[in-house]
Amino acid sequence: MSYLETVLRRAPAGVPVAADFETVERPALRAPAAGELAVRVIALSLDPYIGPRLRGRHMGEPAPAPGAALPGFTVSQVMSSAHADFRAGDFVVAETGWAEQALVRGDLARKVDPAYPLSAHVGVLGMPGLTAWAGVTQLARVREGDVFSVDAAAGPVGGTAGQIARNLGARTVGIAGGAAKCALVRERYGFDACVDYREADWADRYKAACGAGPTVHFENVGLSVYGKVFPLLQNYARVVLCGLAEHYGSDGPPVSYPLGPIVGKRASVLGLVVYDFYPRLAEWVALGGPWLLEGRLALVEDTSEGVASAPAQFERLLKGQHLGKALVRIGADRV
Amino acid sequence: MSYLETVLRRAPAGVPVAADFETVERPALRAPAAGELAVRVIALSLDPYIGPRLRGRHMGEPAPAPGAALPGFTVSQVMSSAHADFRAGDFVVAETGWAEQALVRGDLARKVDPAYPLSAHVGVLGMPGLTAWAGVTQLARVREGDVFSVDAAAGPVGGTAGQIARNLGARTVGIAGGAAKCALVRERYGFDACVDYREADWADRYKAACGAGPTVHFENVGLSVYGKVFPLLQNYARVVLCGLAEHYGSDGPPVSYPLGPIVGKRASVLGLVVYDFYPRLAEWVALGGPWLLEGRLALVEDTSEGVASAPAQFERLLKGQHLGKALVRIGADRV
Repeated sequence: MSYLETVLRRAPAGVPVAADFETVERPALRAPAAGELAVRVIALSLDPYIGPRLRGRHMGEPAPAPGAALPGFTVSQVMSSAHADFRAGDFVVAETGWAEQALVRGDLARKVDPAYPLSAHVGVLGMPGLTAWAGVTQLARVREGDVFSVDAAAGPVGGTAGQIARNLGARTVGIAGGAAKCALVRERYGFDACVDYREADWADRYKAACGAGPTVHFENVGLSVYGKVFPLLQNYARVVLCGLAEHYGSDGPPVSYPLGPIVGKRASVLGLVVYDFYPRLAEWVALGGPWLLEGRLALVEDTSEGVASAPAQFERLLKGQHLGKALVRIGADRV
Repeated sequence: MSYLETVLRRAPAGVPVAADFETVERPALRAPAAGELAVRVIALSLDPYIGPRLRGRHMGEPAPAPGAALPGFTVSQVMSSAHADFRAGDFVVAETGWAEQALVRGDLARKVDPAYPLSAHVGVLGMPGLTAWAGVTQLARVREGDVFSVDAAAGPVGGTAGQIARNLGARTVGIAGGAAKCALVRERYGFDACVDYREADWADRYKAACGAGPTVHFENVGLSVYGKVFPLLQNYARVVLCGLAEHYGSDGPPVSYPLGPIVGKRASVLGLVVYDFYPRLAEWVALGGPWLLEGRLALVEDTSEGVASAPAQFERLLKGQHLGKALVRIGADRV
């Protein structure tokens, strides 16, 4: 049976927009070859890194050609398997492309536990959640008494990072864009405070919310936040450098910040690449899964419907118009 | 009895030069008041931080006025004491000014062990050595198998850092200016390799010497080295940011470096301020003192004679013309 897939119509110039994409009809999948799985896609995760990835600016991976499968992970269900580790009915996370169906290599697919909400496996219990866990617990080693600050706090990485830090005993201060996001951060994610960087005096409000200053800052945005936060850090602060999303669409010079303040603050500035932590995902799921079921971790999703909605949803994400984890619902959880 | 002291004649414009100083005769010291010590100075330590310190650009401390006592630590001997913890004959490290004699506060003086060479207490067993120990063992946590890189490797911080790293099982690569310094680093300090940054192809030689790249880099110089070294680091490298000496005389914009490579390398960039580790000096002396006596730590000093020689010796230091720890010999070890 034929199915739909969304691909690039043209190479994006700068930040991708919906018009860079098109949705095409594909003929029915062939049967999986040895080692392959045929899957039906349930939900596609849209994440900021896909922007630079589409332009060949992410981790050295080439840009996908127009018409080719797009990068991005989905939670899917196996329809038929030619890999010994999987059978029909299993739920997996895999890089399927932005499509209703796909053939994927079993050795690149990861079975997930249907005891948890399926879409969580590409969100709070998937790559964004793992990113947050790695930064908070493995790099910054947040503990009771820390003042934990994070930007893009309404997003799945920042929001999960703050919730983990809170669950570990830190005071949590978020930075987000707009009143709705700040309300989400405070009310759903349970941060102690959240400031709106669109307000002119946000840095003053942030300073007040942090008291003596952050002992840990988790950076997802870039210089517009980092440059304001760094001078407010307490001595010996740990800074997790995770993303510089505001610069992803830029062709300008590299994003630079002075070295002297790192010395003056006795800071530790720690680079985080989530890929390194994939082998430890089960550790995070074992901690975060129960938190999710107990309500100590919120599942907040911003979902559009149908694969053809992915380009507009992706544009919304890149413009910061989403609220919670950006997803595209492509198929039902159960058929 | 009158004595000599060297002071500023005028505020330095940019990097201090010998002509900014003058040596004056002071009348005999009064007897120490309660809590004070009268000391005779044996050796003055000259260190790069004194440059910005004289211009009010170091750790927020004000510049000394012309004619006032200069910053800098000496090893001295107590002539008479009005502090219960000290008695005549004790050896101390204190901030005396650049002078043959001084009155100092006993609570700011530190008794030192005459079992070790006295001048070592302002060098390899003093602040520069403590800096090296803190960076290598407490921040970077160097261990067997590390590839340890350091610049200003002929100096007391860099040279000691490399020797500590070697004693802990690391491969050591130094960067220094000129053939004589590189020979010192290899032959006296026992580094595995040292490259001369004055040679045009130094970065290539450095890369070859480091094999797969440094796992630890200890930065004392600034962008001219840091910018070449950072791209060669192995993933997960630890970078100790200790000094930016080449920028100390500058009034230019802050010394900046891109943030993206910290993420790409998964690096940890760690700011070091030695003052934080003063309470732990005894730990370093307990480790490094025996190494010094066993020959596992070299004592290499560049010494000028007499307090009036201090300005020229300081200018040599700031121009990088010294070889080893820069000192001014002001009095004999024993009278």
